[in-house]
Amino acid sequence: MRAMEIGKIHPTALIDEGAQVGRNVTIGAYTIVHAGVDLGDHSVVGPYCILGEPAMEFYREQLYKSPILSIGANALIRSHSVLYAGSSIGAYFQSGHRVTIRENSRLGHHVRVGTVSDIQGDCTIGDHVSLHSNVHIGQKSRIGNYVWIFPYTVLTNDPQPPSDTLLGVTVDDFAVIATMVVILPGVHIGHDALVGASSLVRSDVNPEAVVLGSPARQVASIRDLKDKQTGFDIYPWREHFDRGMPWEGIDYADWATQRLDESMPGDVHG
Amino acid sequence: MRAMEIGKIHPTALIDEGAQVGRNVTIGAYTIVHAGVDLGDHSVVGPYCILGEPAMEFYREQLYKSPILSIGANALIRSHSVLYAGSSIGAYFQSGHRVTIRENSRLGHHVRVGTVSDIQGDCTIGDHVSLHSNVHIGQKSRIGNYVWIFPYTVLTNDPQPPSDTLLGVTVDDFAVIATMVVILPGVHIGHDALVGASSLVRSDVNPEAVVLGSPARQVASIRDLKDKQTGFDIYPWREHFDRGMPWEGIDYADWATQRLDESMPGDVHG
Amino acid sequence: MRAMEIGKIHPTALIDEGAQVGRNVTIGAYTIVHAGVDLGDHSVVGPYCILGEPAMEFYREQLYKSPILSIGANALIRSHSVLYAGSSIGAYFQSGHRVTIRENSRLGHHVRVGTVSDIQGDCTIGDHVSLHSNVHIGQKSRIGNYVWIFPYTVLTNDPQPPSDTLLGVTVDDFAVIATMVVILPGVHIGHDALVGASSLVRSDVNPEAVVLGSPARQVASIRDLKDKQTGFDIYPWREHFDRGMPWEGIDYADWATQRLDESMPGDVHG
Repeated sequence: MRAMEIGKIHPTALIDEGAQVGRNVTIGAYTIVHAGVDLGDHSVVGPYCILGEPAMEFYREQLYKSPILSIGANALIRSHSVLYAGSSIGAYFQSGHRVTIRENSRLGHHVRVGTVSDIQGDCTIGDHVSLHSNVHIGQKSRIGNYVWIFPYTVLTNDPQPPSDTLLGVTVDDFAVIATMVVILPGVHIGHDALVGASSLVRSDVNPEAVVLGSPARQVASIRDLKDKQTGFDIYPWREHFDRGMPWEGIDYADWATQRLDESMPGDVHG
Repeated sequence: MRAMEIGKIHPTALIDEGAQVGRNVTIGAYTIVHAGVDLGDHSVVGPYCILGEPAMEFYREQLYKSPILSIGANALIRSHSVLYAGSSIGAYFQSGHRVTIRENSRLGHHVRVGTVSDIQGDCTIGDHVSLHSNVHIGQKSRIGNYVWIFPYTVLTNDPQPPSDTLLGVTVDDFAVIATMVVILPGVHIGHDALVGASSLVRSDVNPEAVVLGSPARQVASIRDLKDKQTGFDIYPWREHFDRGMPWEGIDYADWATQRLDESMPGDVHG
Repeated sequence: MRAMEIGKIHPTALIDEGAQVGRNVTIGAYTIVHAGVDLGDHSVVGPYCILGEPAMEFYREQLYKSPILSIGANALIRSHSVLYAGSSIGAYFQSGHRVTIRENSRLGHHVRVGTVSDIQGDCTIGDHVSLHSNVHIGQKSRIGNYVWIFPYTVLTNDPQPPSDTLLGVTVDDFAVIATMVVILPGVHIGHDALVGASSLVRSDVNPEAVVLGSPARQVASIRDLKDKQTGFDIYPWREHFDRGMPWEGIDYADWATQRLDESMPGDVHG
């Protein structure tokens, strides 16, 4: 058979008998699935991946048993990725190649993590978050929903390096962080904020603020930004971009209104 | 046999019968070569590589057949690299470890791509281009010949992130981009220009300009730069450096003149 | 058996008969150990690693025999890492995933190298050095003992790119270099110095200096930095942090005094 065939587990893949593999799962050649992994239906895992990689305790304690790694249905995990035991990942997860996700993290559904990106553990990440290639999410980061982070950006966490204090970064819903940005420990990025490329963010960023520079300073509101050719608004981006989003093909405002109606007491589901 | 032996294909390598493998090719242990790959004579591929990695359509369409990945003769592709179906790469290609090259890209001959570098697809790259380690070439980039890009540099492409507009960067012949530079979408770097380390390039760079800073500004012409010890010119670099270049061992000016003669109507080949 | 079992060598691992493997060594599935590797007792090597990767000469010279790669006892080398022939690494080495260490480098004992970090060869690194994820150490770098380097930092080496001049960076004992810093070729970072995040360091840094910015300038002495909440000193860090250090659990000053006594003529060992 081929090295990767949809719906099949390659004979060279090493699947521990203590792993739970869902229906119609594809696993590429030479991939390792450790005991304690729970992999959702219809998921695809490329070659040379490790699911359920053990944390440090495994090497120190003879009887150590790794915690569960839970991956929702319809995941697409590309080759050479390493996902540790002890994290949980929602449905429709998608990764590039050589991604690392460490222990004790919780990722929502429809999260995308680009090639070589690294989620360092003890992180919380919401739904529909997109991390591009080579993004580094330090331990204890808190990322909301619909957040975008572009290549070579780092969320740090140690305010007095080296120390044992870990002060994670918080990024609120709909925020966008461009390429090669460093966010210092404990910083809070407000909802819908936009951080420009190559910035060093040392202090909190207001909702809807555009910040730039090293150190980053507020230069505008996202509502001031216009398309150079058309003169139209660009942000909030959710009103102009919908690919892969739950409001794809319908207007964001209509979708949001509908969602609000559904969550009200006495609504159709009440 | 050993895990890597010149001129041999390791028995653990998975070579699809629909792949075309040239004469005297070396393939290391556990490497995967998919159908549709055309690998040139005398090429060497390290362990754990994937040649012909399928694009997203493969996972969505049951009958999808990947396009050709063509790799010229004398390639040296180091371990853990992933080259997608649908690109074409000239002769004497050389990669570091864990390199990614996505679909629909065209690379000339004698291209070198360093460890962990990532060419994101829909790119055009000329001949004798050297990308150092961990360089990120965004989709739709256009890179000329004899270009050098140093570690942790990113060519971006989305002017209004997140959007569906992709505006690639253009880099002309002989340009040099130093370490940890971000080039913003649509920027044009002129021939022989030099971009200093840690710069953010927001606007076009003139031929032979030296630019620096964040945002980058022109600080000199490359012809102003002198070696501190000798006082001699350093740039254009092609007049002082020839390792691996077609003018190696002969003077650049002589080589260029000869090439010009050869391409003239009525020349010796006419 | 499982893909990784303490004290066992997985049957899919390819161990050359010319390799020397110590007692009680663990080697994960699919890993390659070439001839000439000397791997210390009690070491653990994850899956998909290559130990003893050959340098360029291997591909050029039919009779080329790789030099020794020596790795001390109690190493922990995580998956997908590539360590070249011709380097020597002290005891208690620890690596993240996908680490590269090139030829002709010497690393002391208790060195830690984070995921995706790359040591380019011809480097000297002391004892108890910690490189975080995605750190790039250019050829000919000299790093002392007890040095910390944080993610996405690059030590460069070519003063006139591209050229054949390699001018390595020197980093003295106890120095700390924060995230996303570029150090230009030939720069000397003094002992106990602290380089702030996102800096570009173009000139030498004094011992105990705090430098920041692009280009980096001295803004303080490390002795001026106080904890915001307690008002206490933070640096020198060795007086406030001991995890994994030889003075763990004892006071740094006591440890240093004791060490000094031991090394004096006429001491207890004399």
